[in-house]
Amino acid sequence: MMKKNVFFLLCLILVGFQSSYAQEVPKEPENIISPEVNADRTVTFRFFAPKADTVQVTSDFLPPVKVMSRFGLVDGPGTINLTKDKNGLWSYISKPLDSELYSYSFVVDGIKTTDPNSPYALRNSASMTNIFIVDKGRADLYKTNDVLHGTVTHNWYPSAGLKMNRRLTIYTPAGYEQSSEKYPVLYLLHGAGGDEESWAAHGRAIQILDNLIAQGKAKPMIVVMPNGNVVQDAGYGYGKDGFYKPQFLLPQSMNGVYEANFMDIVSYVEKTFRVKNNKENRAIAGLSMGGFHTMHISRYYPNTFDYVGLFSAAIMPREDATGKVYSNLDETLKVQKNNGLKLYWIAIGKDDFLYQANIDFKKKLDGIGLKYEYLETGEGHIWKNWRIYLAEFAPRLFR
Amino acid sequence: MMKKNVFFLLCLILVGFQSSYAQEVPKEPENIISPEVNADRTVTFRFFAPKADTVQVTSDFLPPVKVMSRFGLVDGPGTINLTKDKNGLWSYISKPLDSELYSYSFVVDGIKTTDPNSPYALRNSASMTNIFIVDKGRADLYKTNDVLHGTVTHNWYPSAGLKMNRRLTIYTPAGYEQSSEKYPVLYLLHGAGGDEESWAAHGRAIQILDNLIAQGKAKPMIVVMPNGNVVQDAGYGYGKDGFYKPQFLLPQSMNGVYEANFMDIVSYVEKTFRVKNNKENRAIAGLSMGGFHTMHISRYYPNTFDYVGLFSAAIMPREDATGKVYSNLDETLKVQKNNGLKLYWIAIGKDDFLYQANIDFKKKLDGIGLKYEYLETGEGHIWKNWRIYLAEFAPRLFR
Repeated sequence: MMKKNVFFLLCLILVGFQSSYAQEVPKEPENIISPEVNADRTVTFRFFAPKADTVQVTSDFLPPVKVMSRFGLVDGPGTINLTKDKNGLWSYISKPLDSELYSYSFVVDGIKTTDPNSPYALRNSASMTNIFIVDKGRADLYKTNDVLHGTVTHNWYPSAGLKMNRRLTIYTPAGYEQSSEKYPVLYLLHGAGGDEESWAAHGRAIQILDNLIAQGKAKPMIVVMPNGNVVQDAGYGYGKDGFYKPQFLLPQSMNGVYEANFMDIVSYVEKTFRVKNNKENRAIAGLSMGGFHTMHISRYYPNTFDYVGLFSAAIMPREDATGKVYSNLDETLKVQKNNGLKLYWIAIGKDDFLYQANIDFKKKLDGIGLKYEYLETGEGHIWKNWRIYLAEFAPRLFR
Repeated sequence: MMKKNVFFLLCLILVGFQSSYAQEVPKEPENIISPEVNADRTVTFRFFAPKADTVQVTSDFLPPVKVMSRFGLVDGPGTINLTKDKNGLWSYISKPLDSELYSYSFVVDGIKTTDPNSPYALRNSASMTNIFIVDKGRADLYKTNDVLHGTVTHNWYPSAGLKMNRRLTIYTPAGYEQSSEKYPVLYLLHGAGGDEESWAAHGRAIQILDNLIAQGKAKPMIVVMPNGNVVQDAGYGYGKDGFYKPQFLLPQSMNGVYEANFMDIVSYVEKTFRVKNNKENRAIAGLSMGGFHTMHISRYYPNTFDYVGLFSAAIMPREDATGKVYSNLDETLKVQKNNGLKLYWIAIGKDDFLYQANIDFKKKLDGIGLKYEYLETGEGHIWKNWRIYLAEFAPRLFR
């Protein structure tokens, strides 16, 4: 009797162990697809985590929440819970989404993580955030479509002033290698936290140019995307400093040194590529810090660029902006105006923390009589707006 | 008295709530550095997860464990536990490590995740794995050092045979843009699961060539890294198919179509770049599936390449290798031998699942009388070996 009971108890323990074991580690399903953009423009997110208590997706397609940032209170990505099935696979289906390039992360029991089923991700400061595209609308411009493609090159130019060889990203339009034609050049500058990879990565500049040119909406042009951080020879991971932790704003990026040495870049490009090297065939544009650089470079070399684009430009006065480059602002803007230029283009989102600074700058230009075109969009200081601005700006160039 | 007790109880609850709140969500420390390669060659890993029960690091610097893979039982990365401090920051310090490029992931309560403090990661099939370099040794070749850098371009070549424009990665050595010299060309092919990004990413081919050329150990050469997956116009995320889930071996990659259309690539390169377009100045090499492609391309066009490199080549007979390209193997190898070539180079690791197939192939070459050089290394079918093979092979070219 005793033995029978012990055996029975053992059986119970074993059954209990087995079922709890089976419950604890279901097998990971084969070939989980995440994210899946469905035909009805909803998107399904999937994450296998049988032991997790909560799995969430945080993304800019969800209703935004106010978050404290270095720019004050801004709209941040919303967060929503996934639902777990009996096999430990969590999922969530979004509402139908507008055509856009979205970013997202999973949050598993409070820890933010990338999607293990998608390698498509972009760097945000030190960490990676996954991306997906909902097409059949605006974001068709951001896709690699079946059109003729330009060439993307990563060159190193010698900067005599910065005493470094420095890395550039350069786009040459489809047909460049097969022709002997000369092309106009757009210099396209990134913002704080970015580098020479940013416009191609977050900005989808390669796809936007390929598509606009293929559609006949933009002239074939060379696009030069330099690195605006003067302490770097190259973006994070590409330079002599190896793999180090990215930070938001590198030192000396807005103290005049970059602007004062910008002609090293123009000179290298004009020696190395087949370009039309005159004012009518040079454009310069930049976002945020790159808009600040653009404004200053274009008036510091006031007879160099016929097209100027300020995208959410960080043109507020800065305490460290004391160097020679930043002096005589009004006078040099007047010189720039008097030299003549074909387009001075300003764009900003209504919710941008730099909105008022741009309104103030427009008033300054009004006072000087420097004519500009102005685009005001919704939302704030985000890549969604900068992709839109590039797609609006590029077709206006070299006409 | 009653009221006092209620108040006291409330205080207790509040104190309890507060302390449990404080205990549950410690503040994330500012600026966590992970991984940190220390001066003594140990590496510190850090991960903030106050609520996690276990945090582990899984990496190829740890003693390997046997894992079942598509190649059978192979060495996989080992796993070790991190230790949690009172603020919820987990850490682990490795033993001093040999100079190498290592990869790692964190495993948090059983879920594999990337390092939120490092954006340096490589794609492995669908997911990302972080990387770090321990220098002062072999891996110095894999770093972007302060030397003159070549240019990396992403071009699209027209493949008449595959009826697609297809993406290539092309390295031109430092000085290419400033000279009118013509250069020899190495065609460098990836393996299954890879694409035209793999040799530059996992293989550190750009750094290896920059460094070997700067040291005078390799001749300045152009390196062409094509995409060997004939169903793709470009690697995952770069082509017209958008962001889709990577899989290990794409269809038709080893059925002869790629080899039969390889001259589309050579023809584009020789029309577009300043190259020495003769046999003495053409080399071809590849890893795994790319070694299979290399062996077949070099004998199918038996008077085209003077230098041939098989890196862990997948040269075992395949059931689907039935096309015209794969017929008359011995006869075409004899023709290749009789045409003369300067170097037939074979390298493989002792633990590679393709070891025996390579030994058998060497016997075949012995029978034919085709002379080769042979390098046998430790370990198996891993990028560590392929970086070593490229660093050994490139200095032997174009002498």
